[in-house]
Amino acid sequence: MVLVSDIYQSRSDNEAAIILRQDPVVYPGPHAKGEFALSEHQLRNYRKNGFIQLRGLLSREEAAGLLCEARNLAATSGERGLPEAVLEPGSDVVRSVFRVHGLSAVFERLMRDGRLLDVARQILGSEVYIHQSRVNLKPGFSGREFYWHSDFETWHIEDGMPRMRALSCVVLLTENSEFNGPLMLVPGSHMHYISCIGQTPQDHYRQSLRKQEYGVPDETSLGFLVQRGGLQSTKGPAGSVVFFDCNTMHGSNGNISPFPRSNLFFVYNSVDNRLGNPRGGLQPRPEFIAARENAPALQRL
Amino acid sequence: MVLVSDIYQSRSDNEAAIILRQDPVVYPGPHAKGEFALSEHQLRNYRKNGFIQLRGLLSREEAAGLLCEARNLAATSGERGLPEAVLEPGSDVVRSVFRVHGLSAVFERLMRDGRLLDVARQILGSEVYIHQSRVNLKPGFSGREFYWHSDFETWHIEDGMPRMRALSCVVLLTENSEFNGPLMLVPGSHMHYISCIGQTPQDHYRQSLRKQEYGVPDETSLGFLVQRGGLQSTKGPAGSVVFFDCNTMHGSNGNISPFPRSNLFFVYNSVDNRLGNPRGGLQPRPEFIAARENAPALQRL
Repeated sequence: MVLVSDIYQSRSDNEAAIILRQDPVVYPGPHAKGEFALSEHQLRNYRKNGFIQLRGLLSREEAAGLLCEARNLAATSGERGLPEAVLEPGSDVVRSVFRVHGLSAVFERLMRDGRLLDVARQILGSEVYIHQSRVNLKPGFSGREFYWHSDFETWHIEDGMPRMRALSCVVLLTENSEFNGPLMLVPGSHMHYISCIGQTPQDHYRQSLRKQEYGVPDETSLGFLVQRGGLQSTKGPAGSVVFFDCNTMHGSNGNISPFPRSNLFFVYNSVDNRLGNPRGGLQPRPEFIAARENAPALQRL
Repeated sequence: MVLVSDIYQSRSDNEAAIILRQDPVVYPGPHAKGEFALSEHQLRNYRKNGFIQLRGLLSREEAAGLLCEARNLAATSGERGLPEAVLEPGSDVVRSVFRVHGLSAVFERLMRDGRLLDVARQILGSEVYIHQSRVNLKPGFSGREFYWHSDFETWHIEDGMPRMRALSCVVLLTENSEFNGPLMLVPGSHMHYISCIGQTPQDHYRQSLRKQEYGVPDETSLGFLVQRGGLQSTKGPAGSVVFFDCNTMHGSNGNISPFPRSNLFFVYNSVDNRLGNPRGGLQPRPEFIAARENAPALQRL
């Protein structure tokens, strides 16, 4: 393992590396005092841990409606064979649906809801747009794991996102419990960037959304992060919301329990951090995975 | 789903069925007052739930020694290509080692330790022998799930075990936490026998120890059991011990955490419940999976 200080390189070498974060976690800006902005205490926790969980930010009733919408989207987009519908590895069960804010008016409104948008603007210190949205369904009995990854590593290399100035907002559509493979985060991991081994093939996304093979952090680096920060899982009732930094290491185990574990993701990116060219001569990924064209700054509801 | 009253048939029909248990859970007998026997209260819980967890029954130091022995066994039996060493699906990582009480003097002694043996004799109401022993290593980062199953279904069909008069004793060799795929049990499920769909091919065990494809309970029946009893996971420090009935439905999720989840299993069977012929014309499985010849009643240490 080599410690290097060049900014955020990855998949360009035969050795893994741990690179110190070069960017703020919370950006100063004009949105610090929005109606639903985090308190100073909450913001401190976010800065320190790289995430914050807001239990019951949405009501259970709202979550039930969103879950219904997500399942309908999964069924119809799967049947129609839309590229937005990604299947479980070795199966025809829908694992994820992408670009849900474009496919559904319900999600289009939710992404502009002050409870989510005020926090995103506050943390990123600017106007924001949706870089990516998706639902991960993780069905009961057969839901497969999501292996450890930093989103930013992928977005930087495959999408050309310049800096760490994006976050994921996760809305729990079902209860996340110890039994159904809840999201696990490594507190403090957002302060280190794990540079990964290996080149990336063209059109890697077709496979990687089902099962990641490039941009996978090595076990030594993961062990380093977990030894420093431990692990935390985001258990909570449906309607809870988690905000986490684009470089926070996360993953989740599979789900053999009968209880689906379905989560909705909005990835907010700063309008001052729009995508450039992917690294290593890669072609840009499709619009439904990484928005370039159709990505206006969001108007609050 | 059809409710039938024939005793414990399975894999003989095209429909799943739920069959009421026809056997006691706790058997009367001469061993009710052994030195380490369970209290009345503990026994009541075992009868009701189909399992009981004894936190810290073995010390952490003992567990550390057992873990070391288990890892050595995994390494040496894997290298030597012993049939007792079973690999993870699609991998050459050792998933389980069987017949550990035959391969290691340490485990041979432990199976006769009063802390385990007194409880096994008490619950089964007779002298007992080891039907099967194994270590499930479930390594960090890559440990795969064990899907839901009742051990008795397999032992009845594939090994000709006549009745429900056996139990598993699980020794936690590492901490089992919410992060590393702990054993999950369905409380009360031992009172229903889930008859499974499908015939069993000969030599099924070669595959089934890596990934089960026959004797898999259907989702409707699993949902029925979990709705009645809920789920419980056996989290606890290394050295904790779980006793569970041969018909208690159990399984575990995979493990992407860096922490191995290694558990040792002794299956105690009553000497009055020795194996007969497998069902459906199957050949008996090998001795290291289901003891017939080399299975004397155990002498207490």
